[in-house]
Amino acid sequence: MRLRPPADAIAITGFMGTGKTTVGRLLAERLGLEHVDTDELIEAEAGVSISEVFARRGEAHFRDREGEALGRALSVSGRVVSTGGGMLLRERNRDALREAGPIVCLTASPEAILRRISRDDSRPLLRVDDPAGRIAELLAERRPVYEQADCHVDTTDALGDEVVERVLALLADDPRARWHVGTRTTVPVAIEGAAYDITVGRGVLDEVETSYPPREPGVRAGVVTTERIAPLLADRVRASLMAGGWDAQVFVVLDGEGSKSLDVAGRLWEQMAEAGLDRGSTVFALGGGVVGDLAGFVAATYMRGIDLVHLPTTLLAQVDSSIGGKTGIDLSAGKNLVGAFHQPRAVFSDIDTLATLPAEEMRSGLGEIIKHACCFDAEMFEFMERRCAAVLGGDGATLEYLVGRNCQIKAEVVRQDPLEQGLRAVLNYGHTVGHALERAAPEWSLRHGEVVGAGIVAEARLAVWMGIAEPETAERQRRLVAAYGLPTAVTGVDGEAALRALDRDKKIVAGRLRLPLVPAVGSFQIIEDVEIDLVRRAVRSALC
Amino acid sequence: MRLRPPADAIAITGFMGTGKTTVGRLLAERLGLEHVDTDELIEAEAGVSISEVFARRGEAHFRDREGEALGRALSVSGRVVSTGGGMLLRERNRDALREAGPIVCLTASPEAILRRISRDDSRPLLRVDDPAGRIAELLAERRPVYEQADCHVDTTDALGDEVVERVLALLADDPRARWHVGTRTTVPVAIEGAAYDITVGRGVLDEVETSYPPREPGVRAGVVTTERIAPLLADRVRASLMAGGWDAQVFVVLDGEGSKSLDVAGRLWEQMAEAGLDRGSTVFALGGGVVGDLAGFVAATYMRGIDLVHLPTTLLAQVDSSIGGKTGIDLSAGKNLVGAFHQPRAVFSDIDTLATLPAEEMRSGLGEIIKHACCFDAEMFEFMERRCAAVLGGDGATLEYLVGRNCQIKAEVVRQDPLEQGLRAVLNYGHTVGHALERAAPEWSLRHGEVVGAGIVAEARLAVWMGIAEPETAERQRRLVAAYGLPTAVTGVDGEAALRALDRDKKIVAGRLRLPLVPAVGSFQIIEDVEIDLVRRAVRSALC
Repeated sequence: MRLRPPADAIAITGFMGTGKTTVGRLLAERLGLEHVDTDELIEAEAGVSISEVFARRGEAHFRDREGEALGRALSVSGRVVSTGGGMLLRERNRDALREAGPIVCLTASPEAILRRISRDDSRPLLRVDDPAGRIAELLAERRPVYEQADCHVDTTDALGDEVVERVLALLADDPRARWHVGTRTTVPVAIEGAAYDITVGRGVLDEVETSYPPREPGVRAGVVTTERIAPLLADRVRASLMAGGWDAQVFVVLDGEGSKSLDVAGRLWEQMAEAGLDRGSTVFALGGGVVGDLAGFVAATYMRGIDLVHLPTTLLAQVDSSIGGKTGIDLSAGKNLVGAFHQPRAVFSDIDTLATLPAEEMRSGLGEIIKHACCFDAEMFEFMERRCAAVLGGDGATLEYLVGRNCQIKAEVVRQDPLEQGLRAVLNYGHTVGHALERAAPEWSLRHGEVVGAGIVAEARLAVWMGIAEPETAERQRRLVAAYGLPTAVTGVDGEAALRALDRDKKIVAGRLRLPLVPAVGSFQIIEDVEIDLVRRAVRSALC
Repeated sequence: MRLRPPADAIAITGFMGTGKTTVGRLLAERLGLEHVDTDELIEAEAGVSISEVFARRGEAHFRDREGEALGRALSVSGRVVSTGGGMLLRERNRDALREAGPIVCLTASPEAILRRISRDDSRPLLRVDDPAGRIAELLAERRPVYEQADCHVDTTDALGDEVVERVLALLADDPRARWHVGTRTTVPVAIEGAAYDITVGRGVLDEVETSYPPREPGVRAGVVTTERIAPLLADRVRASLMAGGWDAQVFVVLDGEGSKSLDVAGRLWEQMAEAGLDRGSTVFALGGGVVGDLAGFVAATYMRGIDLVHLPTTLLAQVDSSIGGKTGIDLSAGKNLVGAFHQPRAVFSDIDTLATLPAEEMRSGLGEIIKHACCFDAEMFEFMERRCAAVLGGDGATLEYLVGRNCQIKAEVVRQDPLEQGLRAVLNYGHTVGHALERAAPEWSLRHGEVVGAGIVAEARLAVWMGIAEPETAERQRRLVAAYGLPTAVTGVDGEAALRALDRDKKIVAGRLRLPLVPAVGSFQIIEDVEIDLVRRAVRSALC
């Protein structure tokens, strides 16, 4: 089941006196979201109370103002929106709310409603002789529209926290609101003979020992991490593992690609042997791609392969490198030249670890996420277009969805092609041009995510030149890359060197290349025989 | 289909005048075997001709002498035995010949027979008036016994090389004589998803390129070998690969366990990258166990695993370490602590490479062969009891059978348990005590095959103590170990150190051990709860 993007808004609606404003405010507080009340927006703009608006201009006028207020309420994403009791009467409002997210309808008994509103004489619709009768009449009248809400919570007996708890429980089951509630997402990776789960959520690092307990108490665990991450997370992870019965030890390596070396791997093997790790032990890789690749390789080969659990702490590692079983170290002749396929037993991706991630590290991950959106998921692509600020702002719900959904996409590709023999080619979208740029650039001057951004833009153009995609499709990709702060073309790269790097691409056969291209956002097509001259032109178009 | 031991003798029989002596002599020459003729044995002993014996003592007396001569002819194994034409008339002779090996019966037309023997008046049975009639009569009389031979070759039109070729062709199909002919044996290793063949034979190293050609001309091959083997075999293998279209390069490492190091592996990886080996390349491991383990590990991890072909040149590598996909290098903390399971694409075991093997290297392999015989194959065990001289003398047919049959045994165990999770435990027979001795011995003072020999003797005794086996079963194992020059108990090993090493055995659970034991030669039983005290007693019994 495809994971859905977070709701733009959670609406609290219902009849007057059911507690919409109170519950909305409390809920927003609990979720860390902004709260708006459409009635308050109308009053603020009009400078008079709702009953005044009603009295002076009549209900039809009020309903118009209410529609406008809703538009303003929804113009900013990530809010809890309490509406007036009649908001759902207009179909346009219902559609706008449904589009934005789940609609929670509060209900109460007519007696409770009467009791609550009798303390308040500002209700224009109840200025009648028989308010109880009028309530019953209105309730009956509006039942059909209230029934269209996604869920209903009765507030007859209580208002406040108890109601909020019930709302939260219902939202946890809602595919678009669950992210706000901060639940756990499990993505199964169904590789034959090596199936495992990726658990995505906030704070999951503290729960590793519950989901992945030792086979028996005292089994040895080796937590491999880097100097930067060790003080932030290693003690916490070790404590959590020890609490679960593991005999855990932490092995620290230097940060950076330099640790993906034979020397460091050799030191880890020796340290693990000294620490008494045996065939029944597990290696936990706590960190980014470097730690995952290095610790993964060490686990793949220590005693001919012991168990491995990934605890990725960067966006790139969470959405890409921790999935698929690729492990490896570098030689002086090139990156990842020594390695093994070794599927982990489990992956725990804690969204909270992204909070302290430098912006350029985030961008590295975003390159791969945009690539996935282009090739696999138009809905995610649109979400990213619409919610750029939430993503870049590090909004928890948003990142939880993005990580979860991207894990789903990569896991599905890996399931279909575990040893990288066919379909995984699609994961190279943006990478043919990207790699050529990367190899021609002065070392470390461009991050992987940056060249992937420029590569996507260039390869999107290539699809247009070949008549595979409309110009608008390429333009949307260019705009998305730009919106996320990734370069749409790179500077400081020698053009001739980039073309030479392209010519060394192993995928070139008889002057032609097999390339994944994007005919329409959210889909891909593997083109068997792209002319190398066109790809060269694409590389040149990526230089500025 | 279980491979059968080489025949003790190849019998050439048939009617007089069919060419038994001539064909027998030529055949023996071709196979490099000794030739004996029972009639000649009788004449030599009697000091007179066959016709004299017949004339003086009568046919019954001659048949008695003939039976005795056959006994003498078969008392030495590995001969071609030409018999008199009437040898098969006695059932006891037929049984003895059938037991010893295939019976080839030569035939010819009565006219050809008459023509040939008319030049020779020494034939006692034909001193009659109508020899042609007598021939027809005798042929009819003897047809039922001649028909019991394993194969028949007509010599009417020719004698000599042409007949020998036809006999060789028939022997190549005979499960016991094929080894003498020097054919190829293919042992399939049916591991799921990684099936491959082991080719066993004399000279198969020159044929690698025919059985294992490159996918396309120019594909790179890396031949990894040692300083000792390089001048003997590397050029030949490289030339054979180049002739088949491979672009082959030789990588030489030092001899000895020291090469199973991270340093040497690192150098090989870098050299392979420099030489341009890529994902489509193949590593050929030319050498003994060290080269197989090292090159296997390098192949398993270079670019996350490239193809591997084993070209084992020691007995131990041919019957044991090249089969099963185990690869690895040593750490300072212990042997084989870093490695991977990596099944080869093919194995070529050239028996000829064993000719130059030092005696102690042969003994290492014999330890594992005796272990296989004890647990899996009573026929091989008996063969080894009977044919010790042929094995130790390096007889080609004998070694070809032993290598082929032991590959079959190990391949079947590996097929059933590719990742060493259960059945492979049986391969530890003799190794629990053996490892304890090995670990307690001064470094390099005992070869692996030697401790395995003493281990088998001790564990055979253990089975008797437990009431699992008869004393005679243990005694036969002890005698076989001794016959092959392996120690039945070791000197220079500190007893307390051996017991401490035993106590560190990872298989000990709650004071008990899971051990394979041999209830009767050729079978095994995995005993789940052997008391550690009994095993300690077995270790002590292995010290002298």
